[in-house]
Amino acid sequence: MGDDDYGIRAGEVTAELPQHFDASVYFIGRIRTPWTRREDCPKNARESDAVCTIEVDARWASALRGVETCSHVLVLYWMDKARRDLVVQVPRHYGEARGTFALRSPARPNPIAVSVVRLLNVRDNKLSVVGLDCLDNTPLLDLKPYFASTDAAPEAVVGWHAKRER
Amino acid sequence: MGDDDYGIRAGEVTAELPQHFDASVYFIGRIRTPWTRREDCPKNARESDAVCTIEVDARWASALRGVETCSHVLVLYWMDKARRDLVVQVPRHYGEARGTFALRSPARPNPIAVSVVRLLNVRDNKLSVVGLDCLDNTPLLDLKPYFASTDAAPEAVVGWHAKRER
Repeated sequence: MGDDDYGIRAGEVTAELPQHFDASVYFIGRIRTPWTRREDCPKNARESDAVCTIEVDARWASALRGVETCSHVLVLYWMDKARRDLVVQVPRHYGEARGTFALRSPARPNPIAVSVVRLLNVRDNKLSVVGLDCLDNTPLLDLKPYFASTDAAPEAVVGWHAKRER
Repeated sequence: MGDDDYGIRAGEVTAELPQHFDASVYFIGRIRTPWTRREDCPKNARESDAVCTIEVDARWASALRGVETCSHVLVLYWMDKARRDLVVQVPRHYGEARGTFALRSPARPNPIAVSVVRLLNVRDNKLSVVGLDCLDNTPLLDLKPYFASTDAAPEAVVGWHAKRER
């Protein structure tokens, strides 16, 4: 089917979407990054040292109390440009078909991304961070303290990916 | 205000919720755990070695292709019993007021939890995993491969929490 960024490629499979949603989310702020076109975004967050800014809406600003003591933060955001019905995908840079849940692609039933960022500072309702790879103006869903005790698994292996690297 | 699990305690602060939602999610499966009451759940996932089962709805089952090669998986789920308007909270086991975004409490504007689990096996649409601490029948939102290269930050520190442990 060609290379349309949001279309379907040969080998990809879609599911019929459910007829109704089950719950809803608020956009609680915006993520400001240097990237305004999908093709400019780093392929993953370790590829870039760019400082990005997370702007939390004034309504939620007091929920930041204590975040400044965190060295790392989990950032949840909404990848609102991706289709939601792909169950098998063929990422262009891999060229092999894999299940959506084995990929970090933005195309998924619930287009919620999770990124681990290094926190540089918090000023008022703005966080300066390193480690994002999303488009400018991406809607923010949540911020969480990153606990190494439960969130770090340095021994983790993604078998299909490790095999490619050999 | 007392100890009501989903009420407000002294020192807690609420925000007025926005008048409308911005996007919606599908529940794509259910998480089966041994815990049916909130007070029975482990305080965090490292406290329990219980094997839990993630049941992905048939509609999305083919999206699991390749997940079996992952040693660890990020699990996103919906904590549908928590209130969403708390910006400052006083967790019972800490007894100090902190911003919602400095806590992993289920009470947050978007009650989306992120857990890192160890994957034991995948059979059809069911995953056996270790590392969850949620209530039985919790709605599933997403599964993602855990990449140590971008998701593991073993050096991370949550300052307010580390100070308590000293």
